[in-house]
Amino acid sequence: MQDASSFEEPGIGTVRELLAKGDAAALSELGRDMHPADWADCLEQLSYDEVAEYMELVGPENGLPVFEFIGFEYKKNVLEKLSRSTVAQILTLMSPDDRADLVEEVDEDMQEHILSLLFQSERQNVLKLISYPENSAGAFMTTEYAMLRTNDTVQGALEQLRLQAPRKENVYYTYVVDGTLHLVGFISLRRLIMAPRRSMIKEIMDRNVIFVRVDEDIEKVAREMQHYDFLAMPVVDYQDRMVGLITFDDIYDVMQKEATEDMYLLANLDKDESIGSPLHRSVKLRAPWLLLNLCTALLVAYTVHLFSDSISKYVVLAAMMPVVGMLGGNAGNQSLTVVVRALALGEISLGQHWRVLAKEIGVGLLNGLLMGGVMCIIGLTWFQNPWLGLILLVAMTLNLIIAGLVGSMIPMILRRLKLDPALGSSIFVTTATDVGGFFIFLSLSTLLLQQLLSV
Amino acid sequence: MQDASSFEEPGIGTVRELLAKGDAAALSELGRDMHPADWADCLEQLSYDEVAEYMELVGPENGLPVFEFIGFEYKKNVLEKLSRSTVAQILTLMSPDDRADLVEEVDEDMQEHILSLLFQSERQNVLKLISYPENSAGAFMTTEYAMLRTNDTVQGALEQLRLQAPRKENVYYTYVVDGTLHLVGFISLRRLIMAPRRSMIKEIMDRNVIFVRVDEDIEKVAREMQHYDFLAMPVVDYQDRMVGLITFDDIYDVMQKEATEDMYLLANLDKDESIGSPLHRSVKLRAPWLLLNLCTALLVAYTVHLFSDSISKYVVLAAMMPVVGMLGGNAGNQSLTVVVRALALGEISLGQHWRVLAKEIGVGLLNGLLMGGVMCIIGLTWFQNPWLGLILLVAMTLNLIIAGLVGSMIPMILRRLKLDPALGSSIFVTTATDVGGFFIFLSLSTLLLQQLLSV
Repeated sequence: MQDASSFEEPGIGTVRELLAKGDAAALSELGRDMHPADWADCLEQLSYDEVAEYMELVGPENGLPVFEFIGFEYKKNVLEKLSRSTVAQILTLMSPDDRADLVEEVDEDMQEHILSLLFQSERQNVLKLISYPENSAGAFMTTEYAMLRTNDTVQGALEQLRLQAPRKENVYYTYVVDGTLHLVGFISLRRLIMAPRRSMIKEIMDRNVIFVRVDEDIEKVAREMQHYDFLAMPVVDYQDRMVGLITFDDIYDVMQKEATEDMYLLANLDKDESIGSPLHRSVKLRAPWLLLNLCTALLVAYTVHLFSDSISKYVVLAAMMPVVGMLGGNAGNQSLTVVVRALALGEISLGQHWRVLAKEIGVGLLNGLLMGGVMCIIGLTWFQNPWLGLILLVAMTLNLIIAGLVGSMIPMILRRLKLDPALGSSIFVTTATDVGGFFIFLSLSTLLLQQLLSV
Repeated sequence: MQDASSFEEPGIGTVRELLAKGDAAALSELGRDMHPADWADCLEQLSYDEVAEYMELVGPENGLPVFEFIGFEYKKNVLEKLSRSTVAQILTLMSPDDRADLVEEVDEDMQEHILSLLFQSERQNVLKLISYPENSAGAFMTTEYAMLRTNDTVQGALEQLRLQAPRKENVYYTYVVDGTLHLVGFISLRRLIMAPRRSMIKEIMDRNVIFVRVDEDIEKVAREMQHYDFLAMPVVDYQDRMVGLITFDDIYDVMQKEATEDMYLLANLDKDESIGSPLHRSVKLRAPWLLLNLCTALLVAYTVHLFSDSISKYVVLAAMMPVVGMLGGNAGNQSLTVVVRALALGEISLGQHWRVLAKEIGVGLLNGLLMGGVMCIIGLTWFQNPWLGLILLVAMTLNLIIAGLVGSMIPMILRRLKLDPALGSSIFVTTATDVGGFFIFLSLSTLLLQQLLSV
């Protein structure tokens, strides 16, 4: 019995000792006492060679459960160290979607090598699975699931399920296809168990089956499965034939990956970066975004430069600029984030775009008046200049309206252009609020320069 | 058969007509053709009174599946319109966790009313469930699941599972308890079906059962379930007695909510806001963050104000300030986001904090040299001033180092203080890069003012 949160891995020293002794039995024993996910974490502390040695020692059958939980990059490296026959055996035992993922990601030599080790039918399956676009249902589905036929009897169906060694994903609901493999219904195990043994599946199945198409965006599939509280979702091809199954564990991963990507895009980070990326890679992935920002920052600098005269005459303007800019940027990012997240969760339909825009502008107006009001008082008290207070009030109100407008408009426009709503948007929003805010603040100040200086 | 993505709801007019006619049979028929999740979306277009009328018409038993999918706020309002006896029946039929959620959220009058409608044992169950802290496993678990005893026979266990009308969550794995309800193992349905009918459960069960405690943070439970690819996770009390089960559909919701919260915190938004929040509420929820930012912005303004003399003498400095500030803010948010996300996903252990810090400082140094280099060239070409170029190079490099330092340090410190790593952190990061960046840039410029002006 194991409390999930207080799990302690066995000493890596013990594992190394057993490996050195070649004690396959003790190693298998060690692995059996643990969930393969934890055992995989433990093995990943070893070198690729050591893990390869482990796999050869315990054999592909015993090693497969833990091997499936080993991280992708790690797995690739271990495969290169294994003997040809072990690789072949592992690949044959692996689930088809894991196998396809592996083939897709390894380099060409390894790809050819792996494909040559497979039987003809498996090879075709792999080639088909890797042909689906990266974020489609097809790329995530498993092709290993039980199906029943409309003309099966309940008795026959139960036998079949027992023999097909169902994976857990597929036990509660089984999908039913007709003679030409078209998906026509589903049936719960509970119903199957309780039905008279001689009934035909088509008589007792539920025909209201919900499915997705093989080219559907996986993020949309995740939203649908969450909407319906589904454990699994059947996938059909363009002729409505059942070709795969997406399961809850894929959805865990998709939801997490999607959230990370959105967060990263909002912060101008590449989705390929992670906390574990080596220094040089992080530098390389972040630099293009910083360079883009540098270009837009020069636009801001140019805007300020236009008003050099006024600033040199009344230098308080330079001190107040950051306040106008920071508040605008912050408010813009608030609008941006609310809208980006709502678009990602499918909470804004096309028809609601104007309403969202109007609301964000309204929020900008009201919070702009509030922040502008505070700054107006500061202008009056700190600098004892009512004109400065008035200009700050107007400039900040207008800038927060710009923030609401641009913060909500940019992601909605990107969505209509079929781009990711978060793509580079925070750079454009802060540039808009900086250029807009500084322009309004400094041109008002220039117009009222006599009054500002006469106080 | 229904493609999930192209679902069309039946005309709301039809539903209203049937309601007016009081045609319970046709309404039930309409609902049966749809997944309850879609039927609920459809009913939510009606008024509370109409939905209450629907529930009374089709009766609690028929209405319950769709009622469970109706949004929480909506549900509460409908309940208030229903007759006492219908409310009692619905509550008795609801799953215990849904019931507890409802009781927890309604106002006191309604709460007393609901509790008075329940039997003693159900009342105690509800009171116990609502006593768990908001984000604990206890607050999310269901208490409706099948359990087996160690001394059951396989034959008896199968009978029991059939009779207990298991919910889908609980079919594949069933948990095993001993005579004092302590969790001691689990068994898969597959194993149960294939085992000799007279074996005892304790002989064939798997003893390596992984569980969480009732007070465990639900976000951590979600991570564990994803780690193990679990469909369900058993929950035990402080005496190791099984008290509940957390299922995959809870995890879908937790993962989504957690991601939204982190994104919102990074953008200085309150977690209670959503795209549907009314205008006045959004204004109220965002204003405190903007006010906090206003305070820190004044600190930035003060920093700039210290160098008024230099700026008025060489006003190009005012134009270059935004470049130094924007790039620092952007780089700081990059570091911040990578670290916040990694902390949320449990990818950084306490021991790795220094390594993360060192890497982010390294990234800041290298990208700082790159961006500073570009700005150095611009200083040379646009303003033809090598001293300005040199100052920009040094100031931007140092500012991006500050960005990496502060961007990674703040969330890690917040985590050690047991606060949310994203809490207000972007405001502090941009303030640090603005204050730091401007101070370095302007004080270097002041030191080298003669040289700057002599070119």
